[in-house]
Amino acid sequence: ADRRMDQVRRLLRRGLPAADVAQLLESIPPRERDILWEQVDNLAKGEVLQYLNDDIQTEFLTRMDASQLLMATQQLDNDDAADLLQRLPHNTLEDILSMMTPERRARIEMVLSYPEDTAGGLMDTNTITIRPDVTLDVVLRYLRRHKRLPESTDSVLVVTRRNELIGALPINRILVSAPGISVREIMDTDVVTLTALMHEDDVASLFERRDLISAPVISADNRLLGRITIDDVVDVIRENSARTMMSMAGLEDEEDTFAPVLRTSRRRAVWLGINLVAATIVSIAIGFFEDTIQQIAALAVLMPIVSSMGGIAGSQTLTVLIRGLALGHVSGANVRWLVVRELLSGSLNGVLWAGVVAVMAVARFHDMTLGAIIAMAMIINLLVAALAGTLIPVILKKLSIDPALSGGVLLTTITDVVGFVAFLGLATSLY
Amino acid sequence: ADRRMDQVRRLLRRGLPAADVAQLLESIPPRERDILWEQVDNLAKGEVLQYLNDDIQTEFLTRMDASQLLMATQQLDNDDAADLLQRLPHNTLEDILSMMTPERRARIEMVLSYPEDTAGGLMDTNTITIRPDVTLDVVLRYLRRHKRLPESTDSVLVVTRRNELIGALPINRILVSAPGISVREIMDTDVVTLTALMHEDDVASLFERRDLISAPVISADNRLLGRITIDDVVDVIRENSARTMMSMAGLEDEEDTFAPVLRTSRRRAVWLGINLVAATIVSIAIGFFEDTIQQIAALAVLMPIVSSMGGIAGSQTLTVLIRGLALGHVSGANVRWLVVRELLSGSLNGVLWAGVVAVMAVARFHDMTLGAIIAMAMIINLLVAALAGTLIPVILKKLSIDPALSGGVLLTTITDVVGFVAFLGLATSLY
Repeated sequence: ADRRMDQVRRLLRRGLPAADVAQLLESIPPRERDILWEQVDNLAKGEVLQYLNDDIQTEFLTRMDASQLLMATQQLDNDDAADLLQRLPHNTLEDILSMMTPERRARIEMVLSYPEDTAGGLMDTNTITIRPDVTLDVVLRYLRRHKRLPESTDSVLVVTRRNELIGALPINRILVSAPGISVREIMDTDVVTLTALMHEDDVASLFERRDLISAPVISADNRLLGRITIDDVVDVIRENSARTMMSMAGLEDEEDTFAPVLRTSRRRAVWLGINLVAATIVSIAIGFFEDTIQQIAALAVLMPIVSSMGGIAGSQTLTVLIRGLALGHVSGANVRWLVVRELLSGSLNGVLWAGVVAVMAVARFHDMTLGAIIAMAMIINLLVAALAGTLIPVILKKLSIDPALSGGVLLTTITDVVGFVAFLGLATSLY
Repeated sequence: ADRRMDQVRRLLRRGLPAADVAQLLESIPPRERDILWEQVDNLAKGEVLQYLNDDIQTEFLTRMDASQLLMATQQLDNDDAADLLQRLPHNTLEDILSMMTPERRARIEMVLSYPEDTAGGLMDTNTITIRPDVTLDVVLRYLRRHKRLPESTDSVLVVTRRNELIGALPINRILVSAPGISVREIMDTDVVTLTALMHEDDVASLFERRDLISAPVISADNRLLGRITIDDVVDVIRENSARTMMSMAGLEDEEDTFAPVLRTSRRRAVWLGINLVAATIVSIAIGFFEDTIQQIAALAVLMPIVSSMGGIAGSQTLTVLIRGLALGHVSGANVRWLVVRELLSGSLNGVLWAGVVAVMAVARFHDMTLGAIIAMAMIINLLVAALAGTLIPVILKKLSIDPALSGGVLLTTITDVVGFVAFLGLATSLY
């Protein structure tokens, strides 16, 4: 480990890019991580923090004092600085803001005034604007006065005297057009704009569908507030996809892979507790058939097959629906079509695998009734799985509950209970 | 439904963007989809196809004849055209290529010569290159000769006479620099380059870490082959994240949400069959304890709690590891740390929930031995779950098997078998 740390120190001195430093920090356990963090130059800490997951970000931020925080954030764009500062307690935040220039402070406060997951919370307020009635010549001279343009500047925004957005002029078009032409003549007027309170998921989907590099953010009365660039949108896309997968296992999406034992145990305990409630319900359902099991222990041997096949089939339907809802494919109008498709597909697979399982059961226990019972229970459970897998996510979504988080527990509880009750209930009445 | 189709037709006539048409097509069942597809202008079909998932893309492509395909692809960039054309059977592909201009054909064939999931397969061969020894004045005059620059052109590439890449000149820097300066003086020489055979996942991670808009692709001997732009990378990122989630449920990532019954049933049947094998193994394990269950049916009532808690705990560990491997956090050097963390966390939760379950069992069946047995089985199963959840994905990855696809089945088979055997085995020896 010491050899590795030495290598890392050498990389840091050679100016490893911030994202790579963050990747290294995320890939090592807490103790080594703290040592490495101390090696990062104070001025570079802001850049590195940006790329770290929420867990580690919060931990490092709370350890820094106001002057360290000011130093770390001073090289960041307004949006990136706001993104970090909003994780701080209110008092610390106020301290740091009061040490900034009034202009910087005002811009950061504007970003902070919007919820983190909206266009306003993502935007950079550092934009280059021009007036419509000047010529490209003048635009070029104006641009040359900047030492460098803001990152990912693919167009300059055209605004009126009152800062109302009326168009955008792609940088590339400035290059290929005659210098005497006026901005108004060649600017785009059908610019894709974002409103400040638009949800970041909608922003991401718009960037994807329109292949945007950047887009302006406007207020309700069409004033230009700032712009969002693709690099921030890529982070949103990445985080959202991770969130669904992690939610399905009851985990937080920004979880530190190397979170310490106590934090890990506490978070997992909650999820295990919820699942214990579900397992208890299943156990109570089986309890009604204790006498039947006492007579025919073979039922206990076979019953997990019925519940497990139902759970698997249901999870497949559930996952298809969760993805369909996330992509905006599934809406009220076509849920019925999906229910029918899933029920038909569930019947086909139900009959197929009921047959296979029945043959296996008869071969093992030499009991035709048992074969018939497990076959019927399988078909019932696969149909219920199809129905539950389709409807649970749709209903949860309507109730504004994340279907990825709670859908799985609900679904397997239903398929377990139905699987066991159908199998044991049929056995009780047929023997 | 008819009213909706009319609305859609009106939108199409008003020139709805291709990505939105694709979104609409993905959001409706096959029959309506076919009707809508016929309404799409033949020239626009190529653009729309690009945004469709693989399932639907393949279906529509196989229905088009060579001349329709040629028309649909002629407005696409080389990389996008190649992306569609590679889904066609060899003969059709040859037919279409033979109808193209020799230059276009050569460029598309170059992209097709690289595997689809590499930088070469993603790249656009349409690049703007300049020589190092000219002045910005000359560059500007050269750029003005283009009617428009290729999409997402954020820099022009600087090459030698032999097409070797030696630098890049950001467009923004051309704008803010004096016209008399030479390219060599202000070009970037530390350009992030991609090699043609680099895997698309590595390309995506590089774009994310360096906040790139575009990057040049070079051959092994440093010749410029083309460039990759952020819009194509965003698609890669989105598809990869979806793949993990879908794999975990045994589904294909590019699956059509509205796939017809037969296709859905066939694909799901495979996964159900694999899981039946797993469930059968579990059932055989329970079978060894048939006599014990016959004596104490309470065991059958409680046993799903042990297996279910093990499965949940194991899935959480598994998901953390799968994400950690995907993000490159987990490597041979730190697996041991993770195993220890998971075992400790498993012990803590094991002891906690074993206690709760033991109390529940004793309250229900008034049998202290039963409480002790289920508590021990729970602790054993949570420890095994921690170990299996950590090691299974690491081992599968080493064997080049996708841990997201097969990890879950393997894991729950292990936790089920261990849960049932520990519980029933302890009962057999203690009663």
